[in-house]
Amino acid sequence: MQALHNLEISTRGQGLYEFTSTISEWVRHQKIQIGLLTVFCRHTSASLLIQENADPTVRQDIKAYFGRLAPENGPYQHNSEGSDDMPAHLRTALTQVHLSIPVANGSLVLGTWQGVYLFEHRVRPHRREVVLHTIGE
Amino acid sequence: MQALHNLEISTRGQGLYEFTSTISEWVRHQKIQIGLLTVFCRHTSASLLIQENADPTVRQDIKAYFGRLAPENGPYQHNSEGSDDMPAHLRTALTQVHLSIPVANGSLVLGTWQGVYLFEHRVRPHRREVVLHTIGE
Amino acid sequence: MQALHNLEISTRGQGLYEFTSTISEWVRHQKIQIGLLTVFCRHTSASLLIQENADPTVRQDIKAYFGRLAPENGPYQHNSEGSDDMPAHLRTALTQVHLSIPVANGSLVLGTWQGVYLFEHRVRPHRREVVLHTIGE
Repeated sequence: MQALHNLEISTRGQGLYEFTSTISEWVRHQKIQIGLLTVFCRHTSASLLIQENADPTVRQDIKAYFGRLAPENGPYQHNSEGSDDMPAHLRTALTQVHLSIPVANGSLVLGTWQGVYLFEHRVRPHRREVVLHTIGE
Repeated sequence: MQALHNLEISTRGQGLYEFTSTISEWVRHQKIQIGLLTVFCRHTSASLLIQENADPTVRQDIKAYFGRLAPENGPYQHNSEGSDDMPAHLRTALTQVHLSIPVANGSLVLGTWQGVYLFEHRVRPHRREVVLHTIGE
Repeated sequence: MQALHNLEISTRGQGLYEFTSTISEWVRHQKIQIGLLTVFCRHTSASLLIQENADPTVRQDIKAYFGRLAPENGPYQHNSEGSDDMPAHLRTALTQVHLSIPVANGSLVLGTWQGVYLFEHRVRPHRREVVLHTIGE
């Protein structure tokens, strides 16, 4: 049994946007007991991250860290869309655009402190498309 | 045909802990000829890595490199569990918590030099939970 | 329904080698409407990346950035195969060796600007083995 779903996530600037409950509920509705969820982000300047869902300072530190690691003022050739353009590609390359999470007893096997986030790397608001796919029974 | 399994990996400080043979044997016991293995780490301060399994200095260099790339003395807000806390989240974000490895002729298609490792980012001993999922026939 | 395929990608030095059309065509030939493609690279000194397929300066900037982030002149113990050896392992660890891409309406759900690349981290020419696996119907 398989299912596909297109999610749209609206972002308002750089940072981590949690959507754990959206995908958890969608998986529960598929009524599979055992299976695999794949989450796929259709962009090259926004990515996916599983990270701590408790203390919000973790997300702030992650955002600040990637800002230092792939800074806006690097020696980049590509800057057609502004100074946040190339760093957005680099921060996407350093994280990932796909996640695979097993399903057991009808639920995602996420750990207690794991949340699923869209990591927006552009400054302006964007609408990000994320595809969900399950296979299982 | 699907199967699920919960692994527990005990760690004694930061570094790479190989568990290739454990997952290879488990996959062989599933008696699938073609399929897909997903490995999922249920934590935000330990991650998964496929890396060279021959020269141990590669693992030491990887550990030292991530120690420099996401250092303990960074300008972090989050330090509720000590100075190794936030670097552990960052090193997890820079690697990954899920792996997908195809199965062919009943075995994982890992390359000759590829080993599968749990990358522990915390200083104290931990028990890490890793979920294995196969689908195939 | 499942399928497996071994790809060989010849590289001529460090950089990004696109193979989106090869995998897209192979997936179309499987005649599955809904499913999941897994791409797996059997190496520890070459990796996989989904990145922008439009402006070639993006790929040049990515290559240059990883050259700075994991430089050849680091304090490495492991250098048995030359000064590009250990940086190749680190750049592989910072990206990934597996990709999962859902299939919808018989095609990969890649975004308009997403291309799939082999990221070669060694200086000399190599033949890289990449395994493709689909499951779906």
